[in-house]
Amino acid sequence: MITRMSEMFLRTLRDDPADAEVASHKLLVRAGYVRRTAPGIYTWLPLGLKVLRNIEKVVREEMEAIGAQEICLPALLPREPYEQSNRWDEYGDLLFKLKDRKGNDCLLGPTHEEMFTLLVKDMYNSYKDLPLVLFQIQTKYRDEERPRAGILRGREFIMKDSYSFDMADSGLDDAYDKHRRAYQKIFNRLGVNYAICKAMAGAMGGSRSEEFLAVSPAGEDTFVMSTDGQFAANAEAVVTEPGTPRPIEGQPEAEVRETPDCTTIEALVDWAGREDVTINGHKVTAADTLKCIVLKVTYPGEKKKTELVGVLVPGDREVDFKRLEAALEPAVAEMAEDKDFKAHDFLVKGYVGPDAFTKNGLKVYADPRVVDGTCWITGANKPGHHAVNMVCGRDFTPDGVIEAAEIKEGDTAPDGHGTLTLKRGIEIGHIFQLGRKYSEAMELKILDESGKLATPTMGSYGIGVSRLVGVIAEQTLDDKGLNWPVAVAPFTVHVVIANKDDAARQAAEELAADLSAAGLDVLLDDRPKVSPGVKFKDSELLGMPFVVVVGRGFADGTVELRRRGGEQSEIDYTAAVDTITAAVRKARS
Amino acid sequence: MITRMSEMFLRTLRDDPADAEVASHKLLVRAGYVRRTAPGIYTWLPLGLKVLRNIEKVVREEMEAIGAQEICLPALLPREPYEQSNRWDEYGDLLFKLKDRKGNDCLLGPTHEEMFTLLVKDMYNSYKDLPLVLFQIQTKYRDEERPRAGILRGREFIMKDSYSFDMADSGLDDAYDKHRRAYQKIFNRLGVNYAICKAMAGAMGGSRSEEFLAVSPAGEDTFVMSTDGQFAANAEAVVTEPGTPRPIEGQPEAEVRETPDCTTIEALVDWAGREDVTINGHKVTAADTLKCIVLKVTYPGEKKKTELVGVLVPGDREVDFKRLEAALEPAVAEMAEDKDFKAHDFLVKGYVGPDAFTKNGLKVYADPRVVDGTCWITGANKPGHHAVNMVCGRDFTPDGVIEAAEIKEGDTAPDGHGTLTLKRGIEIGHIFQLGRKYSEAMELKILDESGKLATPTMGSYGIGVSRLVGVIAEQTLDDKGLNWPVAVAPFTVHVVIANKDDAARQAAEELAADLSAAGLDVLLDDRPKVSPGVKFKDSELLGMPFVVVVGRGFADGTVELRRRGGEQSEIDYTAAVDTITAAVRKARS
Repeated sequence: MITRMSEMFLRTLRDDPADAEVASHKLLVRAGYVRRTAPGIYTWLPLGLKVLRNIEKVVREEMEAIGAQEICLPALLPREPYEQSNRWDEYGDLLFKLKDRKGNDCLLGPTHEEMFTLLVKDMYNSYKDLPLVLFQIQTKYRDEERPRAGILRGREFIMKDSYSFDMADSGLDDAYDKHRRAYQKIFNRLGVNYAICKAMAGAMGGSRSEEFLAVSPAGEDTFVMSTDGQFAANAEAVVTEPGTPRPIEGQPEAEVRETPDCTTIEALVDWAGREDVTINGHKVTAADTLKCIVLKVTYPGEKKKTELVGVLVPGDREVDFKRLEAALEPAVAEMAEDKDFKAHDFLVKGYVGPDAFTKNGLKVYADPRVVDGTCWITGANKPGHHAVNMVCGRDFTPDGVIEAAEIKEGDTAPDGHGTLTLKRGIEIGHIFQLGRKYSEAMELKILDESGKLATPTMGSYGIGVSRLVGVIAEQTLDDKGLNWPVAVAPFTVHVVIANKDDAARQAAEELAADLSAAGLDVLLDDRPKVSPGVKFKDSELLGMPFVVVVGRGFADGTVELRRRGGEQSEIDYTAAVDTITAAVRKARS
Repeated sequence: MITRMSEMFLRTLRDDPADAEVASHKLLVRAGYVRRTAPGIYTWLPLGLKVLRNIEKVVREEMEAIGAQEICLPALLPREPYEQSNRWDEYGDLLFKLKDRKGNDCLLGPTHEEMFTLLVKDMYNSYKDLPLVLFQIQTKYRDEERPRAGILRGREFIMKDSYSFDMADSGLDDAYDKHRRAYQKIFNRLGVNYAICKAMAGAMGGSRSEEFLAVSPAGEDTFVMSTDGQFAANAEAVVTEPGTPRPIEGQPEAEVRETPDCTTIEALVDWAGREDVTINGHKVTAADTLKCIVLKVTYPGEKKKTELVGVLVPGDREVDFKRLEAALEPAVAEMAEDKDFKAHDFLVKGYVGPDAFTKNGLKVYADPRVVDGTCWITGANKPGHHAVNMVCGRDFTPDGVIEAAEIKEGDTAPDGHGTLTLKRGIEIGHIFQLGRKYSEAMELKILDESGKLATPTMGSYGIGVSRLVGVIAEQTLDDKGLNWPVAVAPFTVHVVIANKDDAARQAAEELAADLSAAGLDVLLDDRPKVSPGVKFKDSELLGMPFVVVVGRGFADGTVELRRRGGEQSEIDYTAAVDTITAAVRKARS
């Protein structure tokens, strides 16, 4: 089918939308793919909807190829199942909640683990019914605090979510591996540059969890990749190599020193240099100091409890709050405020020591590098004073280990994969072994081979389908506009009439018709009163992979074939259909 | 592609769901097409989703054929546009309302006139951009007071809604006619038995509005059809032929008579017979009496006002509240209660006369048959008394005309189309000339040819896409189960293995593969431990149009081809693919 720009519901814009920070967001709005309706809520215009549908098609095909069956659950859901799983509360403000006319609590589904589990419980009861993988491509709702970057993080968005049900753990491993391979195929077909990152499995402990992150400076997620490219992980999932324990005996006594104006690590290191203080026989660096951070941690649940907790990290590293929160999950942490220090006068702001917590009944957790026998300069619990030679296991004893320190470029990668590089990415997929968390919560029981009721194990697998439109735009755009891969472009060929001659116009119309008859989606710029220059600019902005210009050369029997973002060439008009279909075929393979 | 029943997410049920009253609802649940998630909220299982997608495809194709362009708006919408159109209030409890984390009011879109109007306002500004027709196939929300009949009236449902924008009224007429024809094509392709009914245009007065009603006893809407089939209308839209005015002069004086125990029309007519009372020289029938009904009418708007109003209808007809409310819209009416009569002692319950209202400052509206000079027996505003020979225009004068009386089987059809028959139907489509109501409310202005700002005229056009799944099921099912038309069936051919012999099983597998290769959607009942009898029953319940049984006859080289709900025949196994594809082709044409 040919779509005519003279008729298409489209208005390209010269100016970037005021609220856009990210390039793909600017271009998708300027090129008329999407339009903002409310914060984080977008309307899909004809071009954007076509890209979205193309992505959905690829996702659907690969899901069906692994035997997943498509269903569709409602977005408007009753409260009870989410109450039963505890997520009605756990989701907090992220959940859109409402009441119906009868006063019943409802929610807009942020993800559907509960509902799929209940559905299987409702339909199936025998091990013979499993394994089972169900999926849907459906609209989801999350009331993000800071919706950003257009469709990259919206409050209404489209996800593919699937769920696997198996009796045995080995079955879950199979379903997980199948999804992993399907996701690789999907993202490869879509032309996305991505990394598969080990992710935190959260409360589930040992079960597998990986995120597919599209590599992009516009991403919100930091991940690390080893220099050999063999290891990638979310910053949250990186496990720090523990420090080497050392004998406590023979280490110098701890000593409190006056350290005027040393409220920063830098000042403290300077002071140590001036005073010739050494640690383990060497000159003090920031890595020899220990930051004692006081946090206010709130534990969820019925007896919602808030308490102060200490966290110890080497002075050369900041606390990474994302890592910290992942480590504490489901608890939530914030920095202690002045009033908290006032209420606990043993915590001297700026001079907190690692020994202040345990003595006073508070918990303190340490970075994995802080092991028995390591020696530090820390606060001395007294204004203007620090303690030198504070030895772990002698002068203070942490209650446990916490992954709270930031990962730094050049940190050692695990298992001999070299060192770590920091990258930014956008989460486009997540595969996750849920285990029996939801099947237990929803009381899903299935008769096993021996006729006993057993609880199946589950996996949950998501792809951000609408987000992918933004991700692909972001990874492919250039300074002229969008630049779609053939697999997702709204139109494969954009025929531009750039010659006022009737014969040329007629020839362009015929070429468009022939290309369409050859099975290509064709966009025809037939706008009568628009100059060639504007048409060319628009064709770059809109970003179809192939642009054919019927222009001046037509008098000599040629048209111009431009590969968006690539080479351009004069081709014979008479052979144009063959030349173009061959080029498209090549690009697709 | 072949789908195997041994693997499909399906569980057929023997028992009807407890909450189901309508046959299609029972069967769609029993056959595993849909499943209830909450009142009026359903999950689409694999079979149901396929039907839904098939219907969407037909709708999309015909919308694109009239040049409509597909976009997709969000379901979660901000309050302001609906405030501007006044529908935030007018929709009342039907609207799902919620607040986001920042306290902003939101709603779940029940229909999108406001949003489409704003979108066009945002994008377009010249008459050259019009005409324009936009459509979406999208999830809508209405908090129905009584969701019923499964997916026939749900609270979350899928609609195709489109909107036309034109500068001139003639353009709107074109868009309307195009939609009318497209809808006919759609419903014909889907095999729906429907009527196009004139509908109330509501506050818009003269503009055109028609409903497409699927004829079904399960329908909630009553409509009338003329005996010649040329006229159909919603009961609300039927205009009563006015009575013939008669000279007042020369009519007998009104006379108050004692009428003991005459609180019903029947008793009053009996009394008149016993007393030899005549009206216009003939024996009194119910049609000569006049019911004076007292209503409490509430007018919406800022100064929400409730007042008593009289409605006069001939005694042989009931008040049809749907017609009455359509006539009063946007006001809402209910019967006056005892306390209202007590508060207005001039209204004597059971004996209200038509003259009681005006005298006491209340409004009274009459049926179109009540014209000047018509003579009636009415209440006499005095317990146990009626007034005979009450002449309209002499003894009482209505303030206006109202269409409140029921339509009866056999009433005269308009314009010589015979008489009217009452039918029940389910609304599946609605085409509606909005005029400038929304473009004015949303201040959509477009530059016309003379360079002046003008307000475009709009049409709004809906199809109940998910409802159609239920409608088609309802119109085609029989006592054995569902019976899908080829155009929407989830699978065209259902191959049933009903022979334990390995060769037969193998042959069935090959036949299924060949049929699939021939382009047909094939469902294969390959369940190893299920008896042929159960498989046959399931095939009838599931309702695929063609069922092929590989059974006993296979030993003789034949298989059985059953047309669901029709003939069955033995066909040669070797020619089966040709025979079946030919039969399918014939059924499609």
